[in-house]
Amino acid sequence: MTDTIGGVRIEMTDAPDQPAPSEQLLALYRGFEQELLVPLWAEIGELMPAAPVSRALPHRWTWSALYALARQAGDLVPVGRGGERRAIALANPGLGGRPFATPTLWAAIQYLGAGEEAPEHRHTQNAFRFVVEGEGVWTVVGDDPVAMRRGDFLPQAGWNFHAHFNPGDAPMAWIDGLDIPYAHYAETTFFDFGRDRIEDRSAPETSKSERLWAHPGLAPVAAADASVGTTPLLAYRWEHTDAALTAQLELEAQGETHTIEPGHAAVRFLHPQTGGDVLPTIRAEMHRVRRGAQTAPRRETGSSVWQVFDGSGRVRVGDEEWSVSRGDLFVVPSWQPLSVVSEASTDDSDSGALDLFRFSDAPIHLAMHQFRSETEDDR
Amino acid sequence: MTDTIGGVRIEMTDAPDQPAPSEQLLALYRGFEQELLVPLWAEIGELMPAAPVSRALPHRWTWSALYALARQAGDLVPVGRGGERRAIALANPGLGGRPFATPTLWAAIQYLGAGEEAPEHRHTQNAFRFVVEGEGVWTVVGDDPVAMRRGDFLPQAGWNFHAHFNPGDAPMAWIDGLDIPYAHYAETTFFDFGRDRIEDRSAPETSKSERLWAHPGLAPVAAADASVGTTPLLAYRWEHTDAALTAQLELEAQGETHTIEPGHAAVRFLHPQTGGDVLPTIRAEMHRVRRGAQTAPRRETGSSVWQVFDGSGRVRVGDEEWSVSRGDLFVVPSWQPLSVVSEASTDDSDSGALDLFRFSDAPIHLAMHQFRSETEDDR
Amino acid sequence: MTDTIGGVRIEMTDAPDQPAPSEQLLALYRGFEQELLVPLWAEIGELMPAAPVSRALPHRWTWSALYALARQAGDLVPVGRGGERRAIALANPGLGGRPFATPTLWAAIQYLGAGEEAPEHRHTQNAFRFVVEGEGVWTVVGDDPVAMRRGDFLPQAGWNFHAHFNPGDAPMAWIDGLDIPYAHYAETTFFDFGRDRIEDRSAPETSKSERLWAHPGLAPVAAADASVGTTPLLAYRWEHTDAALTAQLELEAQGETHTIEPGHAAVRFLHPQTGGDVLPTIRAEMHRVRRGAQTAPRRETGSSVWQVFDGSGRVRVGDEEWSVSRGDLFVVPSWQPLSVVSEASTDDSDSGALDLFRFSDAPIHLAMHQFRSETEDDR
Amino acid sequence: MTDTIGGVRIEMTDAPDQPAPSEQLLALYRGFEQELLVPLWAEIGELMPAAPVSRALPHRWTWSALYALARQAGDLVPVGRGGERRAIALANPGLGGRPFATPTLWAAIQYLGAGEEAPEHRHTQNAFRFVVEGEGVWTVVGDDPVAMRRGDFLPQAGWNFHAHFNPGDAPMAWIDGLDIPYAHYAETTFFDFGRDRIEDRSAPETSKSERLWAHPGLAPVAAADASVGTTPLLAYRWEHTDAALTAQLELEAQGETHTIEPGHAAVRFLHPQTGGDVLPTIRAEMHRVRRGAQTAPRRETGSSVWQVFDGSGRVRVGDEEWSVSRGDLFVVPSWQPLSVVSEASTDDSDSGALDLFRFSDAPIHLAMHQFRSETEDDR
Repeated sequence: MTDTIGGVRIEMTDAPDQPAPSEQLLALYRGFEQELLVPLWAEIGELMPAAPVSRALPHRWTWSALYALARQAGDLVPVGRGGERRAIALANPGLGGRPFATPTLWAAIQYLGAGEEAPEHRHTQNAFRFVVEGEGVWTVVGDDPVAMRRGDFLPQAGWNFHAHFNPGDAPMAWIDGLDIPYAHYAETTFFDFGRDRIEDRSAPETSKSERLWAHPGLAPVAAADASVGTTPLLAYRWEHTDAALTAQLELEAQGETHTIEPGHAAVRFLHPQTGGDVLPTIRAEMHRVRRGAQTAPRRETGSSVWQVFDGSGRVRVGDEEWSVSRGDLFVVPSWQPLSVVSEASTDDSDSGALDLFRFSDAPIHLAMHQFRSETEDDR
Repeated sequence: MTDTIGGVRIEMTDAPDQPAPSEQLLALYRGFEQELLVPLWAEIGELMPAAPVSRALPHRWTWSALYALARQAGDLVPVGRGGERRAIALANPGLGGRPFATPTLWAAIQYLGAGEEAPEHRHTQNAFRFVVEGEGVWTVVGDDPVAMRRGDFLPQAGWNFHAHFNPGDAPMAWIDGLDIPYAHYAETTFFDFGRDRIEDRSAPETSKSERLWAHPGLAPVAAADASVGTTPLLAYRWEHTDAALTAQLELEAQGETHTIEPGHAAVRFLHPQTGGDVLPTIRAEMHRVRRGAQTAPRRETGSSVWQVFDGSGRVRVGDEEWSVSRGDLFVVPSWQPLSVVSEASTDDSDSGALDLFRFSDAPIHLAMHQFRSETEDDR
Repeated sequence: MTDTIGGVRIEMTDAPDQPAPSEQLLALYRGFEQELLVPLWAEIGELMPAAPVSRALPHRWTWSALYALARQAGDLVPVGRGGERRAIALANPGLGGRPFATPTLWAAIQYLGAGEEAPEHRHTQNAFRFVVEGEGVWTVVGDDPVAMRRGDFLPQAGWNFHAHFNPGDAPMAWIDGLDIPYAHYAETTFFDFGRDRIEDRSAPETSKSERLWAHPGLAPVAAADASVGTTPLLAYRWEHTDAALTAQLELEAQGETHTIEPGHAAVRFLHPQTGGDVLPTIRAEMHRVRRGAQTAPRRETGSSVWQVFDGSGRVRVGDEEWSVSRGDLFVVPSWQPLSVVSEASTDDSDSGALDLFRFSDAPIHLAMHQFRSETEDDR
Repeated sequence: MTDTIGGVRIEMTDAPDQPAPSEQLLALYRGFEQELLVPLWAEIGELMPAAPVSRALPHRWTWSALYALARQAGDLVPVGRGGERRAIALANPGLGGRPFATPTLWAAIQYLGAGEEAPEHRHTQNAFRFVVEGEGVWTVVGDDPVAMRRGDFLPQAGWNFHAHFNPGDAPMAWIDGLDIPYAHYAETTFFDFGRDRIEDRSAPETSKSERLWAHPGLAPVAAADASVGTTPLLAYRWEHTDAALTAQLELEAQGETHTIEPGHAAVRFLHPQTGGDVLPTIRAEMHRVRRGAQTAPRRETGSSVWQVFDGSGRVRVGDEEWSVSRGDLFVVPSWQPLSVVSEASTDDSDSGALDLFRFSDAPIHLAMHQFRSETEDDR
């Protein structure tokens, strides 16, 4: 129960030792207001809850709606210097209309029409792209054009110049993930414009980055001791991710236990020079849930955004439950339990698994010694 | 220039490639709204500025005003379970009336009357106390009562039970610093009640923690390999801090250069098991500026709170400038340059230096590879 | 110049302050001897030279001689419990007949005939296998049989059970590298016998380890946070190593500089959970020197063993120079400069590059802050 | 049982699969010898024992004998450039007459007469001094003269220039500890001469190093982020060490358990910028065993050297047992159990505790993942 005295909100609780409203208290609270002060005892319930309470809400966005709007934007909104990117961001319904999927994470669909180019810039925000469908766009990082194709994960550590161009005759859309809300909160953001146009339009199948770094367990000696601030591997291709998930489930079928739980395989994207998370602020993973399997409810501190890469199923986050299929995105707020069922949708003859791409802010909470996770069994 | 179409704020800029307002665009923006989406191009200026722009404002609170209100609260507001602490927090004028000194940091005056006790609890937030005047309160951490006296810095890493009691016959006030705003933002907060009353009222001069750990460069072998999540040293006494600052200025007078700049000595409080910052989220330092000296304007990513411990002078933060003396607090928002002049106030016959306690959120930004600092010379 | 008084070797130098031989000095030295003492001034020249002086000598072993003796041992020496392995080790001519390739490193040819098995054991020594020719043997690590084929690098971190079996009808030989001399020196060695015979003779093309870990930049989530003491990736296949070296030289031909020096590509084998060296004590690399190219003389603290994997050339180590071709091994002692020329041997119609496998003790010296390296340009 | 064929030592065991001596085997072994090869099966028993077997032997040196010889050396052996130091090293009886206390560690008594100076030099070996009695010598590190007094521990990280001078009118002796045997083994040693004579003879009570760093938990901000290769704190004074040990035993008497075991307190010397061991290769500790107490037998991988600082008692290492009193040194080889009894010697009216200084090579084995320790209870 809350009351207001002198414009100041006061928690009126049954707990002992709370001040009784009085004229003197009113005068005191006016003094607080005047001197830009707020008493802890009026705020402690919200600031120091027994367990994390997220302002973000569980929510699902369907790919069909998202894509339709992105295509319309492709017709109406030019892409170029100033607006920089034709990106349309998820705005969590709990976060006041800001383009924040969660308090820390940005997730947007970006759309680039045939022949278009998004101009070069760099920013301290960490970013990645993930491709749920289509191909034909190259992201140019420095002087390295990196092809984008279905299933690929393309990290982009902060403060590297990058542009995107679409040399083909079909549009392409993909997902951008960034730590924009976190960086905005942390007030550590720097931004620079780069070249307005990349002259070199070479569009190789394989980037220089991959030619140097996409060999399992191998580093170029000339770069092995370099600063590890920036991920040198710019593309994690679907063929590798798929093979890794397939192997985990095959091994499980042979009695080995390298999955998270029965029927639930997952891989994490690594920074090859540290063996840790691919970006300082963002953890990224691909999960595969065998058709018919169900994951145990699990919660953790910090938030994540998920996108269905393939298959269909039902997802439960806290008290919400949705059916999901390819391209759909959903958000898991801090400390909300998540469970997933892999099952055919009514109009789905696919017999395969449910593949889910996921990214989270776990590296932040791990570094601050604030990461906790639990399943129901842990409690 | 900003305009609003269909309830959505749109940045209208002179930059190329911005969409021209039209019926179709209006329909598109309505679609965005309906689907909980926000276009990047309408927000990029605020989200991705060329350099950090803080919502927080530079501000100073005078100790006299703060202490007077705290004393009144001592008369009117009981301390006990529920409200937990008689703490009154700085509310930065740029942060919407929340009890946040900066976007990440909490700073409050806490007041405990003669014979009073603040009940035991624990929380994942990291905390410390700093004593600008007075003595007579013991902070009990687990079963270790730690005396609090002028000049002492007392860290309190997250998730340790602690209470405060005042066995004497005079009230005492001090400063609490925590990462409450950060933890609130990060949504990683856990909280537990402890004992309502600490039966053991022993009040030793020296805590067990100091007897074990306050020996320069020495660790108990039985604890040396223990987990380093929690600082084992619970009090950094003024006599040591003062001696360290004195030595830096004496060595400078002998021609050695161990100060930050001429006339400006500073020490950082260390976690003795890592050699790094005393708390995962908070850096704490004591600075001494020789009477007559002036510090070069310096700015860094992230925010800090400063308190004058002794002496007087003028402080400039961004476009603001204040006179300050003992106990006054001020806030330096992210990327705002700070400079300090140590000089006698008009009513001050003290010939000594200006001593400033400071805490900041630097460890967060260092861990996320987002820390930058510069003086004018660096530019 | 050295003299001996009373059985104690004395350095007689022209330096000032050396003691003049006398009866009293003789008595003093006898006292030292009796009390098990040695004066520094008699030893400092050898113990504290201006730069590292290795007891090891540069030396080359030819593969033809080594293989011929291993094949004879295959006829004469059974393999089994007690002797454990039919391994024949390089004995550096400077190291007193001990089976030590360098003061820290062991290198041996191991030979396993058709149908033979080397029994399971484990030891704290870190090990690897490298295959210069042939195939057909499986190394079983725990319950994971790992195929061995030409060009493969197979690390084996300490204290894991392992056996080898040859299920085919042809013998196979390969190189074992270990830190046996280091561990012998450090006196930290533990050893356990395992099963006398591995019942499960499954011999898959791909090990479980690779199915889980040999995907570039990917880790199984279920294992990602596991202890990093042991490398989880048990085979680094030649196809990947070859592709990585090829890419570096192709990029060089396009004007990129990711090689160590012109015509000299190299990759390092990484521990996928740390991004660092593959074993705590051993660094392993594959180098490729383009036909016609020559590497600049380079020296470093610590020693290494090299094996020619393909091609031919000339190698200069300190004052020694040899022609080398496939399978030949040579040793580079601490601080001895090495340079390599890639050129056709007289009886060699091969037009390809010189491929060199290398392992060294660099991780030890890096961890102790004792690693230095330089080329002539650095001096 | 060992036999020799063709000059090669062969282990003759009852284990299966050992080769039967024959003419062909003899020829094979001659081939090995000729090609500088050694078979594993002839050496495995010594190279790969079930648990560490040290070449070093437990041994005790008495301070009286050591000091008497040092004093004689003071009369007979000048100190100066060339010999560099009047240091007399412990030569472990198991290590072939070399001046090695253990395979990794050097321990020597150094003696400097009134007015003498040991000339400046630097070396990559890590060093320290420990003072069991006397005072009056200053170690000059760079331009910082550091006084040496009973009970002080003075670390000296590699590659810093240092000299010693005795400005007083009495001689002084102390213990030098270094990693000379390790560095000699590792072949990573560099050495430079410095100034022949330090002109500045200032001899302050407190070094600059201590004035900057000997404040518990405090670092100069101007140096806090500096490279951590070199310990910045050059003296750990006895008053602090004594106070820390006293506190542990007092707390134990109050029912707290911060000692290693009942009656056995210990502190470790820390590198203040890392919180870890004071030197990259050397761990240093001071132990105090209450009169009447006895330590449980404990063994660890790696070796250590101990010196009695005060009190008396009996020491058991492996099968050896000695009475010890002030200044006596003894060596504990790898994996040999050590236990200590604190008791009055027959001619000792002292009722105090047994204080023991100790240094070991543990940091090396920890970094290489080869450190193990156990008490009898662990087995």
